Amino acid sequence: MTTAVCPGSFDPVTNGHLDVIERAAQQFDRLIVACMRNIGKRGLLDVDERVELLEAVTGHISNLEIATFDGLLVDFCRANGVSVIVKGLRAVSDFEYELQQAQMNGRLGDVETFFLTTSPLYSFLSSSLVKEVARFGGGVEDFVAPVVADRLRARLQD
Amino acid sequence: MTTAVCPGSFDPVTNGHLDVIERAAQQFDRLIVACMRNIGKRGLLDVDERVELLEAVTGHISNLEIATFDGLLVDFCRANGVSVIVKGLRAVSDFEYELQQAQMNGRLGDVETFFLTTSPLYSFLSSSLVKEVARFGGGVEDFVAPVVADRLRARLQD
Amino acid sequence: MTTAVCPGSFDPVTNGHLDVIERAAQQFDRLIVACMRNIGKRGLLDVDERVELLEAVTGHISNLEIATFDGLLVDFCRANGVSVIVKGLRAVSDFEYELQQAQMNGRLGDVETFFLTTSPLYSFLSSSLVKEVARFGGGVEDFVAPVVADRLRARLQD
Amino acid sequence: MTTAVCPGSFDPVTNGHLDVIERAAQQFDRLIVACMRNIGKRGLLDVDERVELLEAVTGHISNLEIATFDGLLVDFCRANGVSVIVKGLRAVSDFEYELQQAQMNGRLGDVETFFLTTSPLYSFLSSSLVKEVARFGGGVEDFVAPVVADRLRARLQD
Amino acid sequence: MTTAVCPGSFDPVTNGHLDVIERAAQQFDRLIVACMRNIGKRGLLDVDERVELLEAVTGHISNLEIATFDGLLVDFCRANGVSVIVKGLRAVSDFEYELQQAQMNGRLGDVETFFLTTSPLYSFLSSSLVKEVARFGGGVEDFVAPVVADRLRARLQD
Amino acid sequence: MTTAVCPGSFDPVTNGHLDVIERAAQQFDRLIVACMRNIGKRGLLDVDERVELLEAVTGHISNLEIATFDGLLVDFCRANGVSVIVKGLRAVSDFEYELQQAQMNGRLGDVETFFLTTSPLYSFLSSSLVKEVARFGGGVEDFVAPVVADRLRARLQD
Repeated sequence: MTTAVCPGSFDPVTNGHLDVIERAAQQFDRLIVACMRNIGKRGLLDVDERVELLEAVTGHISNLEIATFDGLLVDFCRANGVSVIVKGLRAVSDFEYELQQAQMNGRLGDVETFFLTTSPLYSFLSSSLVKEVARFGGGVEDFVAPVVADRLRARLQD
Repeated sequence: MTTAVCPGSFDPVTNGHLDVIERAAQQFDRLIVACMRNIGKRGLLDVDERVELLEAVTGHISNLEIATFDGLLVDFCRANGVSVIVKGLRAVSDFEYELQQAQMNGRLGDVETFFLTTSPLYSFLSSSLVKEVARFGGGVEDFVAPVVADRLRARLQD
Repeated sequence: MTTAVCPGSFDPVTNGHLDVIERAAQQFDRLIVACMRNIGKRGLLDVDERVELLEAVTGHISNLEIATFDGLLVDFCRANGVSVIVKGLRAVSDFEYELQQAQMNGRLGDVETFFLTTSPLYSFLSSSLVKEVARFGGGVEDFVAPVVADRLRARLQD
Repeated sequence: MTTAVCPGSFDPVTNGHLDVIERAAQQFDRLIVACMRNIGKRGLLDVDERVELLEAVTGHISNLEIATFDGLLVDFCRANGVSVIVKGLRAVSDFEYELQQAQMNGRLGDVETFFLTTSPLYSFLSSSLVKEVARFGGGVEDFVAPVVADRLRARLQD
Repeated sequence: MTTAVCPGSFDPVTNGHLDVIERAAQQFDRLIVACMRNIGKRGLLDVDERVELLEAVTGHISNLEIATFDGLLVDFCRANGVSVIVKGLRAVSDFEYELQQAQMNGRLGDVETFFLTTSPLYSFLSSSLVKEVARFGGGVEDFVAPVVADRLRARLQD
Repeated sequence: MTTAVCPGSFDPVTNGHLDVIERAAQQFDRLIVACMRNIGKRGLLDVDERVELLEAVTGHISNLEIATFDGLLVDFCRANGVSVIVKGLRAVSDFEYELQQAQMNGRLGDVETFFLTTSPLYSFLSSSLVKEVARFGGGVEDFVAPVVADRLRARLQD
């Protein structure tokens, strides 16, 4: 049985993330979506909210679990029987950063990194771009699930 | 009649910006240079000073207006009858970021993004590099107009 | 009045080309689609066929003309009152080649190059990829107009 | 059960290919190494020789089969129950070409492409570079298996 | 006599830095390793500690001196008879930033920039990645000298 | 004493090549410009003509020799006491190819590769672009020395 992990900040989860998660879940026996706890760096949403939104949008995927982690991703993999990290690639700049991380992770632990290219429809999407649009009152319904759009709006009105 | 916009921070306007502005003004009926008000992020120069310097260096271009904006660029375009965003491209890393922005803007509004490549003479120029050089007492006369160089020096002595 | 040109081999014209052509035609007074005659390099389709297909798929655009050229593009521009070259950019590798061409053309003649980013939907499309798919019997209806798909099939059965 | 395919020309198989093949075989239930028959484009080695060398260097991997294909890779996948294509990525230029192929394959068939980054040790390796070195009498023992080095030498003396 | 400089933050010096330093020292008569004093930006290690570690790991190189600088690198070069700046390149994103710096430095002073590609073994290494790994208790012995690993551990326990 | 080599096809030598050659000659004791004999691949100019033009444009550089080579560059280096290969980098695509070559050469022989970035003025120049322009009757005086422009014209009229 192969267990894979999709790590990320998910602040918030976008349709681009969901596309990668759904496709990864189809190819591996078990998929863990692991939400990073960035100590020191505060996001727009709390980690608990991010997890809640991840649960809301992935409820239809049966072989999926949601977890949080801090520390090294390779330690999380070791503790959870994960042999594959799955990452989405949008662009060349993603590629270089991810290549560096993948080679470091391969050195630190016995874990493989597989990359998926994001759908062309979502190639321009990022959590930070979505937050920027929402902050200025732009519509984000094409980019995130309705439950996520609602939460963003609520948070930005605080 | 086609109205185009050159958006930017212009902190300060460089000869590279001016090259793009002049070339864009030749191809469109009307060109607006739109200086972004970064709420929360303070630059070296105030937005009023940036506009003043833009006016000083573009006085010879008749079909040009200078404006400021905050919020989404697509909202500015809608309010001002702008159908084309013009951006200068220096390098591959510019390209990827701008591609993402252009595709998001095309989704958010009915606005087109056209890219110009900067002149090879200015391919290494950026506002932040100019400020770094000026901060350490280096000469910036080759990179910005004299009025801009004077203002930078004055500001950095404050 | 600004006249722009969309140059290319168009062997054959794809939906990605058409997307760029339509968007360019909206922003300039007059657009010429210029099909390059590659002396020495034979394509799948004759230049006459390429022009015929270009005419078939662009019939709805009123401010558009179709032409052919050999020799230097800057000479074509000079002879036809063209001040702007419009090119679609899909990827970083496109960008570098096109940057080189744009800078050379700016040196050789008084002509500007504007780049449009292709729609994410067509970012993976190229004439050669379409021909490769068609050659092996794959369906190309999503990538080219029906009239182009028919012609490709006919040609490949010769 | 997930079946993956590693497609390529393998003219000849290098240590870089072998690294990707071994790592892919560990994560999927069944792996097919599919050697492309380039009709019209002759390599240094015949396809039969390439398959023979692939068999020689992968004999220790139990869940692996070797096959050849021509035509579209998605047709091969459909015919062989393959749901995942695995490709090695060395560099940015690889990435862009492979991204284009992956997005086309995702459109043409119900098949996913996963990318692995090659080991830093093999990031500069390619079949054509190995052939170039061997052609001029350079040693290739660090880059290919001994059986491959012997065959290259024999072929290049013909 | 040609004097070259290897500038950097060295917070801390990694095996990748050391590889570039050793190779540069072999090709020039005299090599200065110049540790940048980032005024305003505090690193993990003090500049004095960085210099101390640089001295510890480069003691075996006879034509090498260690210095610190603030201000413009070209001013340091002028004051120290340096005609060549040597930088290591790991990736495309490095390349673009360094290209910009090199062209600016060539304009500001009479100084040449030479680039070395880092060994594939260290292509994924960076000071910040090493600090991130050490912070979470991962082993960094493969990436930095023992004396550097000890100092990192000590500092992170403070 | 350090001997460096500038290898290339030089079909023909451009002002961009000359810029790199002049700058390399200033930093090393002895510089060899090595013109590659591409067996099997015929250029526009014979190798003898390329060497003749190289001699014509580099006559003012005293520590420079011109040579030709076939086979592996590392073998040429070994035979001529060369410890450094110098290459000009124009763009990201150059960088990746050259990185691969540099890492292979570092493995095959005890030779270092140093990269110079080309002057922004020549960043768009290449021998093949110059030949393309000349072939269609465009002026190439800005891109190559007069003696090279004359020879190109003569050759293309044959």
